[in-house]
Amino acid sequence: MSATPKSSLQSDEVKLIQEKARLLRIHSLRATTAAASGHPTSCLSAAELVAATFFHAMKFDPANPNAIGGDRFVLSKGHAAPVLYAALAESGVFPVSRLMTLRQVTSELEGHPTPLIPGVDAATGSLGQGLSVGAGLALGAKLAGSCARVYVLMGDGEMAEGQVWEAASFASHAGITNLVALGDVNALGQSQRTMYKHDMEVYRLKFEAQGWHVEVVDGHDAAAVMAALDKARTITDRPTAIMARTFKGHGVSFLNDKDGWHGKPLSAEQLEKALAELGSIPPVIPDTGKSCARASLPVPPDFPAPAAPEYKTSDQVATREAYGAALRKLGAVNAKVYAVDGDVKNSTFSDAIEKDSPDRLIEGFIAEQNMVSLSVGLAAQGFVPFAATFACFLSRAYDQVRMAAVSRSSIKLCGSHCGVSIGEDGPSQMGLEDLAMFRAIPGATVFYPSDAVSAERLTEIAARVPGISYIRTSRPKTAQLYSATEEFPVPGFKVLRQSASDSLTIIAAGITVHESLKAYDALRAKGISVRVVDLYCVKPLDGAKLAAEIRGGKGKLVTVEDHYPEGGIGEAVLSALADAGASPIGLRRLAVERVPHSGKADELLDKFGISAAHIVKAAESLQ
Amino acid sequence: MSATPKSSLQSDEVKLIQEKARLLRIHSLRATTAAASGHPTSCLSAAELVAATFFHAMKFDPANPNAIGGDRFVLSKGHAAPVLYAALAESGVFPVSRLMTLRQVTSELEGHPTPLIPGVDAATGSLGQGLSVGAGLALGAKLAGSCARVYVLMGDGEMAEGQVWEAASFASHAGITNLVALGDVNALGQSQRTMYKHDMEVYRLKFEAQGWHVEVVDGHDAAAVMAALDKARTITDRPTAIMARTFKGHGVSFLNDKDGWHGKPLSAEQLEKALAELGSIPPVIPDTGKSCARASLPVPPDFPAPAAPEYKTSDQVATREAYGAALRKLGAVNAKVYAVDGDVKNSTFSDAIEKDSPDRLIEGFIAEQNMVSLSVGLAAQGFVPFAATFACFLSRAYDQVRMAAVSRSSIKLCGSHCGVSIGEDGPSQMGLEDLAMFRAIPGATVFYPSDAVSAERLTEIAARVPGISYIRTSRPKTAQLYSATEEFPVPGFKVLRQSASDSLTIIAAGITVHESLKAYDALRAKGISVRVVDLYCVKPLDGAKLAAEIRGGKGKLVTVEDHYPEGGIGEAVLSALADAGASPIGLRRLAVERVPHSGKADELLDKFGISAAHIVKAAESLQ
Repeated sequence: MSATPKSSLQSDEVKLIQEKARLLRIHSLRATTAAASGHPTSCLSAAELVAATFFHAMKFDPANPNAIGGDRFVLSKGHAAPVLYAALAESGVFPVSRLMTLRQVTSELEGHPTPLIPGVDAATGSLGQGLSVGAGLALGAKLAGSCARVYVLMGDGEMAEGQVWEAASFASHAGITNLVALGDVNALGQSQRTMYKHDMEVYRLKFEAQGWHVEVVDGHDAAAVMAALDKARTITDRPTAIMARTFKGHGVSFLNDKDGWHGKPLSAEQLEKALAELGSIPPVIPDTGKSCARASLPVPPDFPAPAAPEYKTSDQVATREAYGAALRKLGAVNAKVYAVDGDVKNSTFSDAIEKDSPDRLIEGFIAEQNMVSLSVGLAAQGFVPFAATFACFLSRAYDQVRMAAVSRSSIKLCGSHCGVSIGEDGPSQMGLEDLAMFRAIPGATVFYPSDAVSAERLTEIAARVPGISYIRTSRPKTAQLYSATEEFPVPGFKVLRQSASDSLTIIAAGITVHESLKAYDALRAKGISVRVVDLYCVKPLDGAKLAAEIRGGKGKLVTVEDHYPEGGIGEAVLSALADAGASPIGLRRLAVERVPHSGKADELLDKFGISAAHIVKAAESLQ
Repeated sequence: MSATPKSSLQSDEVKLIQEKARLLRIHSLRATTAAASGHPTSCLSAAELVAATFFHAMKFDPANPNAIGGDRFVLSKGHAAPVLYAALAESGVFPVSRLMTLRQVTSELEGHPTPLIPGVDAATGSLGQGLSVGAGLALGAKLAGSCARVYVLMGDGEMAEGQVWEAASFASHAGITNLVALGDVNALGQSQRTMYKHDMEVYRLKFEAQGWHVEVVDGHDAAAVMAALDKARTITDRPTAIMARTFKGHGVSFLNDKDGWHGKPLSAEQLEKALAELGSIPPVIPDTGKSCARASLPVPPDFPAPAAPEYKTSDQVATREAYGAALRKLGAVNAKVYAVDGDVKNSTFSDAIEKDSPDRLIEGFIAEQNMVSLSVGLAAQGFVPFAATFACFLSRAYDQVRMAAVSRSSIKLCGSHCGVSIGEDGPSQMGLEDLAMFRAIPGATVFYPSDAVSAERLTEIAARVPGISYIRTSRPKTAQLYSATEEFPVPGFKVLRQSASDSLTIIAAGITVHESLKAYDALRAKGISVRVVDLYCVKPLDGAKLAAEIRGGKGKLVTVEDHYPEGGIGEAVLSALADAGASPIGLRRLAVERVPHSGKADELLDKFGISAAHIVKAAESLQ
């Protein structure tokens, strides 16, 4: 199977790895039985791979295992968490005694890894994301001038996920040579044999087609795995994949290669039987109950104020264009800011950052999933990645955004071309569910600027706030609403029109702010006075402050958004008000109620019910 | 470049294809200039590929181009819509005059294809989805006993999308031999050269690694493309990929292989110059204005009632298990029902359908994007696919679900393991944003059953309703709430507890219905009477009926959901009430407010604020 020379390895080195693999098996079995849940057999297939990587290949400081100078390990097959935790404990990152707290509500050692655990950089458990995260970590190390290496362990089942191949082609194309993919090919999925079973040549061909160096080894031959890891270090022109033929449950006779054991812990009796097969067993050390969770997670670094917006009152500028301008200015004052693109940089205006420094844009080509997970890896290395594509295509990466939240990552995302206002390209290109998506991400900050100044300022704020930030930008050029010195607190909104005699409040954001201002004029001409609110920050939302504001509009409300009705501005406003104990006296919610159509932007705003004319009608119906 | 023999092709056949390619170029240029937007150069690179496929390879009835017996064409690179429309018109599917209505708000010929256009089966425009749709169409043809073939045209840029490789490996593994992928490798993306430029061997290696037969051709040599299509017909043991080296803008000297032309129409003057290069030009025929949109789109077929639920009052059954039971019963009475799986069939209980007929489950392995788009292809062939995975992993396919809605597809999706009630596996495995996701899909029906009977009945209804249906199921075993004869109208909800003296209404669904019933008992013991509503249908929601119901609970309301607060049940209720002109007098919304944690299900329901104890507290605070 393996043609790798083993001669340079000393037998005592090999014995050490074999012993570590044995200990990892013991810890994994014990912890899952204690937890009465988990995936012990998925740990057993990976024991030699993990042991050789942690105790032979990797160089890192156990006291500071997430340092940029140290090698990293990403457990892409997150359900094998116990074997990772065992390796971290055996490495001295936290006490071995802690392993027995697995999956307890009070323990940081959750069912799947999260970065609350020292030595973990990103949450895994949604399969097929780890190689992208690893590519981001490895690229981040390179960008920071470190020669640290990144190891990503994948299962064979998860290699059916397309994102793995997005990451593989990205990594080789981008020259990420300090990345090693380890394939734990145990041929057993959750519910049946994997697609290619033990056909190792398929994996070789797939990775070779992506431009990787490939080693195929017996994954239970510690010396072979160690030799392959040594070989990987000598490959300096491309990333390396070590595809290891393994058996699920290996090391315990009644588990080895047996179907029906996925995600099942051993009973106490089975555990005893298994441990008896594994040789001399270390005692279980009682845990002290002291949490080993990381004290702090990476947050965006502080930086000096970027250059102020510079627009003339008469300028017509799209918010997407202002996003680009902001990115460029941020790049000038914050060396950690990078743009990440999916071959739409001339539409999102991410390419603006290239004007000063072409190397500050990472071209991910058309692969949104990899773009987001790669950004999580970069953020874990202290960078501030701004990943942008059309808002609708971020739906392609919603799972990756969700996992970024579980990772407590501070990535910045920009979705351009939101709503029907993009016009002729039609519904496939219109982001109409992105507010619903991002509002439902815990701790996310959701910005929706309506002019160039607010777009620039909110992009700057996004670079400062921890957690996931989302900036929704629009395609059409729009008028200036704010002076360069305007400030945009978070949470917050702006009252653009108001008087003592307002009969209702219109709440809008982005393009619909401009429609609302037109409606304001039309209503005023009819003797109807309304106030107009620009809800530039959709989340968080200060319901009490908003409630006070709408009281000035007799409690009546029109919300209008270039988004589907569910999960958008209307519902955000309603729930913020409700949580503040308020509710509108009268309400019309204007939103895009069905799948829209191609057409001119103005035609579509009107056809789908969110134009000034519709706002006027809604306002009149509430008089 | 191409070693394919061309001898069997007659020169007049080749000339016909060359002439058709010329016409496709002319139509594409003219239509985009008339529309003043669009992607003419992306059409020009594909002209010979499309012409040879439509006028040499494909066999279909222009009067019925979506018939199951006919060959199909999927334009995965949807932005080249004009060349597809031109081919359909030149095939006689609709009048050539119609082409000049491109992108108008009154025309079915939108900026990107949708199935409103005869001859189109699925909306495209979000790149990388077409091969999965094609695999579904081709599999559907096979399952229906047709020997029809399916051709999918992809751009090289979109082959960076991982979903392409999910589809490629699925198609070869599933033996979908009637599928042909056409690669329009024009080496120019939107914003720069593609990853592999004109390195055709990379594409050959990638498809060969997936088990495909590959032909590499000069994509502007009509005879070579025709020969490759002929060759594909002789390959009967695997799908075929024809990778064609092309040039963006080919056929017009000032467009050929020029960067900066993506998505840009020619000016009138440029058009004249281009047409002058293209030889004799047919006259523009004035359009009659008559829509050519399809009169009807595929809807789920009717079928006899399946066997009724059979549970004892004392049974404890998870709704995911009842979903499986329902699927099995549906399979027995509706031959079009198929389960589609992502290697979790023993968790979602999709495997129940295999008990009667193993061939009724399509195993897609761990590739959720392909699973959903493949289902769209199956549905377009008249099947009723039920695709299921963990609710959280459907977020991986949100773009595909979005596009299914633009496709007006009637796929059925089931997300199991929703919420914190799954317990120890932790947040990466918990679906907590799926209600937000699916509520924001236009026309979707969103079910959330709370017991086995409702799960079975709602699964049956899902098989009947057009549009996208979503069924949210839970992991824990729960008590029976309904008798086998209970009916579940859509929209609708059930009032499980009520009296004349109710002081508030609790609205719950799924697992929180059971918590609410516990809370009811606890409150009753304290002398507080409340009503309990099971919101089994989250969308659509009858706000007026709900408003009437909560009036019986003094207008006070507690909503409780195993979901994040945004876009879920609380907001659904608030907005339905608001649209009905109602609002609660007092409200507490209980939901999972932050990224949760591993732990026992009961611990987590309590820790994250949605247990009976929290409901009691919320209810008391409103007294």
